[in-house]
Amino acid sequence: RIWSIYESIQTYVILTIVGICIGTTAAVLNVMTEYLSNIRTGYCTTALYLNRNFCTWGELDEHQATTWVEYSRFGVLNYAMFITISLVLALTSSKLVMHYAPLAAGSGISEIKCIASGFTLKKFLSFATYSLKSIGLPLAIASGLSVGKEGPSVHYAVCIGSVISKLFARKVLKTHQKNVWFRNILVAASGAGVAVAFGSPMGGVLFSVEEISNMFKLSTMWESYYCSLIAVATLQFFDPFRTGQVVLFEVIFDQDWHFFEIPIYIILGIFGGIYGIVVAKFNIKAVSFRKKYLGQRYLKEVAVLAIITASISYFNDFLRMDMTESMQFLFQECDEHPHHNICNLESKPEAAKAIFSLLWATVLRMIFTVFTYGCKVPAGIFVPSMATGATFGRALGIIFQLWRQNNPESSYFTSGCLVDNKQCITPGVYAFLGGGACLSGITHLTVCVVVIMFELTGALKYIIPTMITVATTKIINDKWGKGGIADQMIVFNGLPFIDPHEEHNFFGHPVSDAMTIKVVSLPLQGVTYGQLMAILKETDFQHFPIIQSASKPLIKGYIRREDLINVIERFAGDPLTDTPCIFDNDSLSEDDILNFTEAVNTAPLTVNVYVPTEHVLDIFHKLGPGCLLVESDGLLQGLITRKDVLKYEYVLHHIDHDESIRIRE
Amino acid sequence: RIWSIYESIQTYVILTIVGICIGTTAAVLNVMTEYLSNIRTGYCTTALYLNRNFCTWGELDEHQATTWVEYSRFGVLNYAMFITISLVLALTSSKLVMHYAPLAAGSGISEIKCIASGFTLKKFLSFATYSLKSIGLPLAIASGLSVGKEGPSVHYAVCIGSVISKLFARKVLKTHQKNVWFRNILVAASGAGVAVAFGSPMGGVLFSVEEISNMFKLSTMWESYYCSLIAVATLQFFDPFRTGQVVLFEVIFDQDWHFFEIPIYIILGIFGGIYGIVVAKFNIKAVSFRKKYLGQRYLKEVAVLAIITASISYFNDFLRMDMTESMQFLFQECDEHPHHNICNLESKPEAAKAIFSLLWATVLRMIFTVFTYGCKVPAGIFVPSMATGATFGRALGIIFQLWRQNNPESSYFTSGCLVDNKQCITPGVYAFLGGGACLSGITHLTVCVVVIMFELTGALKYIIPTMITVATTKIINDKWGKGGIADQMIVFNGLPFIDPHEEHNFFGHPVSDAMTIKVVSLPLQGVTYGQLMAILKETDFQHFPIIQSASKPLIKGYIRREDLINVIERFAGDPLTDTPCIFDNDSLSEDDILNFTEAVNTAPLTVNVYVPTEHVLDIFHKLGPGCLLVESDGLLQGLITRKDVLKYEYVLHHIDHDESIRIRE
Repeated sequence: RIWSIYESIQTYVILTIVGICIGTTAAVLNVMTEYLSNIRTGYCTTALYLNRNFCTWGELDEHQATTWVEYSRFGVLNYAMFITISLVLALTSSKLVMHYAPLAAGSGISEIKCIASGFTLKKFLSFATYSLKSIGLPLAIASGLSVGKEGPSVHYAVCIGSVISKLFARKVLKTHQKNVWFRNILVAASGAGVAVAFGSPMGGVLFSVEEISNMFKLSTMWESYYCSLIAVATLQFFDPFRTGQVVLFEVIFDQDWHFFEIPIYIILGIFGGIYGIVVAKFNIKAVSFRKKYLGQRYLKEVAVLAIITASISYFNDFLRMDMTESMQFLFQECDEHPHHNICNLESKPEAAKAIFSLLWATVLRMIFTVFTYGCKVPAGIFVPSMATGATFGRALGIIFQLWRQNNPESSYFTSGCLVDNKQCITPGVYAFLGGGACLSGITHLTVCVVVIMFELTGALKYIIPTMITVATTKIINDKWGKGGIADQMIVFNGLPFIDPHEEHNFFGHPVSDAMTIKVVSLPLQGVTYGQLMAILKETDFQHFPIIQSASKPLIKGYIRREDLINVIERFAGDPLTDTPCIFDNDSLSEDDILNFTEAVNTAPLTVNVYVPTEHVLDIFHKLGPGCLLVESDGLLQGLITRKDVLKYEYVLHHIDHDESIRIRE
Repeated sequence: RIWSIYESIQTYVILTIVGICIGTTAAVLNVMTEYLSNIRTGYCTTALYLNRNFCTWGELDEHQATTWVEYSRFGVLNYAMFITISLVLALTSSKLVMHYAPLAAGSGISEIKCIASGFTLKKFLSFATYSLKSIGLPLAIASGLSVGKEGPSVHYAVCIGSVISKLFARKVLKTHQKNVWFRNILVAASGAGVAVAFGSPMGGVLFSVEEISNMFKLSTMWESYYCSLIAVATLQFFDPFRTGQVVLFEVIFDQDWHFFEIPIYIILGIFGGIYGIVVAKFNIKAVSFRKKYLGQRYLKEVAVLAIITASISYFNDFLRMDMTESMQFLFQECDEHPHHNICNLESKPEAAKAIFSLLWATVLRMIFTVFTYGCKVPAGIFVPSMATGATFGRALGIIFQLWRQNNPESSYFTSGCLVDNKQCITPGVYAFLGGGACLSGITHLTVCVVVIMFELTGALKYIIPTMITVATTKIINDKWGKGGIADQMIVFNGLPFIDPHEEHNFFGHPVSDAMTIKVVSLPLQGVTYGQLMAILKETDFQHFPIIQSASKPLIKGYIRREDLINVIERFAGDPLTDTPCIFDNDSLSEDDILNFTEAVNTAPLTVNVYVPTEHVLDIFHKLGPGCLLVESDGLLQGLITRKDVLKYEYVLHHIDHDESIRIRE
């Protein structure tokens, strides 16, 4: 009774601590990122450690600020400083990460999906990985590389979940339950990671449901909810931006949408789908190239990327700005910044220039993202994708607006807008929808993306347009895409993962084709301690079926290697080589025996040899056993594990594939 | 190939039609409800068929409208009209529903949960039920009874899903797949039902995930998303309120929340939890009383309820108004209606009067809801719960605001607010949060409630407070509640449902205790057509195991009754009484045989007799088979279905229960 009360409190205690740690980390990271981003363009004369925002606090016009100054009056020198600082930041990030915790490089979402589905990746969730990911991330973002913070946020959040739950968990749960419990904490932490990255608590919850969690359970969703709430409340408490807001940008659209805009929403959705497919495809190629030819020369690669990105970005407004700033800017209506060239569309050349500048930013951001995602710094792909979509969407919005300006009396427009309504079309909305479309295109998430976009901006009136755009992207992706980038990376890297949401085709082959027949089974009686030790020493099988006898292998039970070892270790006294091992109470006769009865699962899951492999996979997903015994007429025929299924799928599908794809053992 | 393309399009085609029908129905219902609600207090002099809103369209001040007039200048006559019309509406609703489609009475969510989990309830999803639910619902709501429209909306939406998919589905799927596909359509439709009821498409999606769907799959979520989108877009297209909005109320809160308000959020959450527990408990008692003593006197009951509700409600502002109007009113800040007494808090008696009026409305609404939910009209409980929470929350908000007015310099308040900030505390926010808390309290939903509240109001700044309140309610419910009202109704009515989210305790009893041993099994050879027909005629078993022979009942396969019948019907020629029936290709020898081989499942799911019943239940939930064969050493020992598990649970837990609880066969 007391234990069970303690257990329920334990989960809350741990989730609370995890949430607070995630929120605190996020707050520190936000401050660091903002400061480091700012020093690329100037410094604070009153105090070097202040970022631009605090430095110019209280000054009326940011552009005439006297306390925050550029490095030099000469544009060229500023340009050189910009590139140099970007380079230093990127190299520091890469060097630190690769030296101390190489697993902290990259995004981490793919690996976390595998861990949540039940596999183990050593050191991936260690304290070292956490520290280096948190230190490397602000450096990488501030360097101007086309990387986002949400993937790495998920990774450090899950590291925190793992470290804290190992520190605080008491051994009150059985091994199997404990693993499930532990994985649930990790799933909850992953949700909190997205929640703090975007300041979007419900988006985080839905991310953990839609992307990470392997088996959906209401209790897991609730844990994720609780952890995200604590994390975001903590972040809000620290209020790192000193704006009282945790969201990256808040935009209020006060115009309603019109039915005649639906074709544009659909075009944006199609763009999102194409973006996702193209970027994923070329990114996989880039990663493959890196693996084959670059090897250990990752620092040079990062240096080249940083220099190219910085030197080109400097000349485009939307690339030079921090990505989130740039999105905030693009989402707003023109009354917020009437003097920028994307709002001065009176003359044709000016309008053309604005559109060109936006499309140019779109193309460049796509190229940068393709090459940068996967390089050896902590790097996410959500925010770069949104930024790409935002520039494209804004360009499309301006084109659409100009078209209407030239045809204000067309019946197409008058169906929804009065002729003299200047505000009828809001290009900011298209930027917003474009961002959502690209985010959905690259991740293949739907509900989660809609909720994140909604929470980011509170665009209540635009929920239906967002849904239309994301639905279009989803349909394109389903038809021509190959899964979200995280899933494609899993396949590419040969990570041990069986996607429960995907169709697996074994062409109806029965489990007898996929199972392993290399099984050591133990008869109920007749095995001695010496023989058992020899088996444990010479093989590394994890699963041992128990059978009636070698001549009549009726399945009687099943025991795991660790249970065998446990019983042996707990044996009072020293077993002799010929001490008999007993797996069945009926066989208890002698005194001096090794009795494994308590550890035997007498009713293991069995499947018939004719069961289709698809069905076996279904059982693994849904019931989550470690292995299944394969029988025919009650007699043991073999044994099958998840890895056997994966290997068999690999054999069936990937025989002619490139050698870089292999299954990690 | 063509069939598979057709199949994928088929789902979209059907979901589109379903969505359009749901949206259209919702639009018609909204118009009807508004008109009928209005005529209780007056009529339009220019055209009788106009509701108040259209009647006074363009007039500046609603209160001085000349085209919409009350029935008489005498208050007493108006009062009498109000009660009479309420009574007529309620009786019409009840009479129509109970006469033509009694299954359309009540909410319907409980039954839909059962259907989604795989059981069949005849006529529950028929066209008649749909029609009567749609006609009865506006009458019931307009009568002023304390009923909401979301439960019935879910019900009529699922009816539409069922009718349309039966009309348009082509037979391209196998029976088993078809059932799963059909249930997915129903789940998607249920989401669309909530989506149109609240104008909250994402809330609908999450409702279908959190409440209805038995097995979460991403594809089901996507179908629900698509269907909700179409339904809400259709509703928006018809624009029944002529406001361009589909949501019931939109409120913009422009104040930020403060950390010192968290205790109030928690109090609201606790109230929500208590509300849920108390209302569910007494409602079950009321329903039980109705079942035992009222029997067929449902019309009298409805009449009494309508008269009492109308005659009391007339004297309280918040009860007389339509529930959604009243909530809109309570959520708003005082600058929207500065003259109402809940905004005139200068003098103590006035403030006390306002608080008393709100608390009085809270108590009455609770009592009305307890007695009304479950009576024989279409009735939901979501909106009444929200309305109750809103009056309570507003009262609490006013008390809190007064407290601050009296202690403006207390350090408790100055931690977050300047002393001279009059706007620091917004009572409307507490009304909003109270509504969310009670909704969560009665339904036990969390994520869905937060998203619905969010979508209803676009209260972006208040997402963390909403989450805190709902989390508190959830913790109270988990500790002391007995599940959402829908689940409690399922238990109370003995509906065939196994809650996949609930713990089921079979005290470790093995499946051999729960299984049925009354099984007719068919040997591979030796059964004649005559014998088979006798078996089919004399028993109503649905599942027939195939065994090696009667003397050695090794499990060889499994066949369902409908497959047996199918094969017999398709047999060319007339089988003779002694025509042999063959279930195994090895036995094929003679020409004139009934060959069932193709229809036999040669690798059925089997479980060992020692498997704990909890585990069997898990298999039913997660793999969804019709039945499981129970074996020992490969020999058939019995058979178990979901109903056997339910019966066994009933035997274990409910032996001493009241006789009104029984398992419907």
